[in-house]
Amino acid sequence: MKMILDLDTGIDDGMALAYVLGSEDIELLGVVGTYGNVYTENGVQNVLNILEMCQAPSIPVYEGEKHAIKKSGFLRLEVSARIHGENGVGQVSMKKAQRRKEELSGVDFLISAVKKYKKDLVIAATGPMTNLASAIIKAPEIIEMMGPVVIMGGALTIPGNVTPYAEANISQDPYAAKLLFESGVDVTMVGLDVTQRSVLTKESTGKWRETGSVAGMVFADMVDYYIGEHDSSVGGCFLHDPSAVAAAKNPKWFQMLPMHMTVVTEGEAAGRTIGSQERLREGNPNVKVCIGVDDKAMEKDLDDTLQNLFIRCGKARED
Amino acid sequence: MKMILDLDTGIDDGMALAYVLGSEDIELLGVVGTYGNVYTENGVQNVLNILEMCQAPSIPVYEGEKHAIKKSGFLRLEVSARIHGENGVGQVSMKKAQRRKEELSGVDFLISAVKKYKKDLVIAATGPMTNLASAIIKAPEIIEMMGPVVIMGGALTIPGNVTPYAEANISQDPYAAKLLFESGVDVTMVGLDVTQRSVLTKESTGKWRETGSVAGMVFADMVDYYIGEHDSSVGGCFLHDPSAVAAAKNPKWFQMLPMHMTVVTEGEAAGRTIGSQERLREGNPNVKVCIGVDDKAMEKDLDDTLQNLFIRCGKARED
Repeated sequence: MKMILDLDTGIDDGMALAYVLGSEDIELLGVVGTYGNVYTENGVQNVLNILEMCQAPSIPVYEGEKHAIKKSGFLRLEVSARIHGENGVGQVSMKKAQRRKEELSGVDFLISAVKKYKKDLVIAATGPMTNLASAIIKAPEIIEMMGPVVIMGGALTIPGNVTPYAEANISQDPYAAKLLFESGVDVTMVGLDVTQRSVLTKESTGKWRETGSVAGMVFADMVDYYIGEHDSSVGGCFLHDPSAVAAAKNPKWFQMLPMHMTVVTEGEAAGRTIGSQERLREGNPNVKVCIGVDDKAMEKDLDDTLQNLFIRCGKARED
Repeated sequence: MKMILDLDTGIDDGMALAYVLGSEDIELLGVVGTYGNVYTENGVQNVLNILEMCQAPSIPVYEGEKHAIKKSGFLRLEVSARIHGENGVGQVSMKKAQRRKEELSGVDFLISAVKKYKKDLVIAATGPMTNLASAIIKAPEIIEMMGPVVIMGGALTIPGNVTPYAEANISQDPYAAKLLFESGVDVTMVGLDVTQRSVLTKESTGKWRETGSVAGMVFADMVDYYIGEHDSSVGGCFLHDPSAVAAAKNPKWFQMLPMHMTVVTEGEAAGRTIGSQERLREGNPNVKVCIGVDDKAMEKDLDDTLQNLFIRCGKARED
C-alpha cells in the first residue's frame, strides 16, 4: 500500500510514523508536516529527525500549511505544549537531521502524488484537514482521482476533547474538515469514538527501551512522557494517531458506519462532526465513521511492529 | 410478546398503538397516557377513543405523569399543537369512548406489571421518559426485574429536532432519560437516526380509507394531516413512534450500537443523548442505539399490519 502521512508531530503522530515505518506492507512516499500539536516548522523538523533516527533518511518531507484556511495565523494551545512537550516530542532531545525539507510545498506534493498514483494512494492525516482541503481547493480535479483518505479526527458518539462538541483536529479548521467530508472523497473518520478505546502501556515502552537502539530509547522516553500526561485511570496512553494508520492498514479491525458527515463551522458547537439530517436518506455515503475497534488486535500489532522496528534500527546502526 | 405502551398520543403515537393492535404476536397489557405531544388528559382520552374505535375496548388505560420530574408543570409547545393538531389527532373528530381511564396510576401500573411479568414484559415508550423514571425512583427494586425497554427518543449521529442537540422526547425530561439510560436496564434507543429514515406515504393512507372502516378513515385523515405538516421533500411522514414498536417486534430490522449512554441535563445542550466518555472502555453496555434500519421491510410490515387491522375493524362492525 502506497501511503502519504500528513502529521502535526506531536508524540502520537511520531508513533503513527513509526508504525508506518515498521509496517512492511506500507510504502511511505512522503510526509507532510503541519500545524496543530506543534507549529508547522517544528512538526517538519520532528519528522526529519525521527526518520533519520529510524534509518529512513530518504523519505521526503514537505512543509504543509501553517494555519487554518479562514484564519490568518495559528497560536499553539497551551494544552498541546503540555501534552506533547514544548518541543512536541515530550521534551526528549533528538539528534537534528542532517538534511532539510523539500522545496515543493506540502499541498503541491499532495496534488502531484494524487495525480500520479490515483486510487492506489492512501493519505493518512492526523492533524487538521487544512492541507487536504487546500489541495482540493487548488486542484479540484483531484477529487475524482483520490483514493482512500483516513483521518484521525472528530467524535460522533461521545463528546469532543476541546469542547463537549469538538475534537482537537477538527476544531483547528472546521471549514477544512467540512470541505473534505462533503467533497465525496472516500474518507474514513477515526475519531475519539475509537481512539480512546485503545491504550499503550509502559510495558510496551519498557520493551522498546530494552532493544537498546537509540530509536527505541527515544520513543520510550517520548511515550512515557505522553503517558504521564494522561489520567492515571487510563493506565497508559490513548492511541489516537496510530489508530488512523491501523484503520488504513487493517480496516477489518474497525466497525464502520457509512454516513453523510458534515461539520459545524460556527458558534459554540464549531468543530462538531455530525451526520447531515438533510442527506440521511441519500444513498452512497462517502464517510465511514469508526464506531468500534478490536482494540486488542490493534494494540498487539502496534506493539509488535514498533518493537521490531526498534530492533531493526539497532541492528542497522551496528552494521 | 407481552407489551405495555407509554404514549403521548399524538398522531404517530396513535399509529404505534394501531401497529401493536394489528400485530398478532403482541399482547397489549395496557397503555399509559402521558404528556408531550399533548397534555396527559388529552393523551389518555385519545388512547381510549382509538382503542374503542379499533375494537379493543377492554385494554386498560392509565394516566401517567403530567410533567417532567424536576418541573412543576408542563406547557405544550406550539409546534406540537401544529404538528399533531390542537386535539392531538390531526383535528379529526373521533367518537368519545364510553369508558374511562383506570383508577390505578400509570406509574403504579408499570411497577406492578414489571413485578408480575418481569423479563417477559416489553415496555415501549414514545413520549418523555418520566413515567419510567418515576417508576424506578418509586420502586428501585424493579430495575433488576425489568425486561426490554424500547424508546422512541434521542439523536446520536444527526442533530436533534428541538435544538441542534436534543430530540423532543428527551428534551422534555432529560433527567428522566438520563436516569433510565444509566439504570442498567436493557434499553433500545430508537432515535431520529432511524425514525427519519422510514416514511409512510399517502399511498398507504389511501388504502386505509378504501377499507371503508371508521378506523381506517379516521387514521387516514389523521395521518394525512400529519403528512401535511412534514416538509414536502419527505414525500410522506416520518415513522417516529411506530419505529419503536418495530424495533421491539423485529430487532433484526435495525442495526444497533451497544453503548453506555448518558444525557446532558443542563445548559444549551440539555437533552443531548451522547455516549459516556468515562465509560467508553467499560464492558456490558446496556443501551442499544439504533443507527441503521431496513426501512423498506419496516414500512411494508407497518403498511400491511395497519391495512389488515382496519379491514378487521370494518368486519367487526358489520358482525
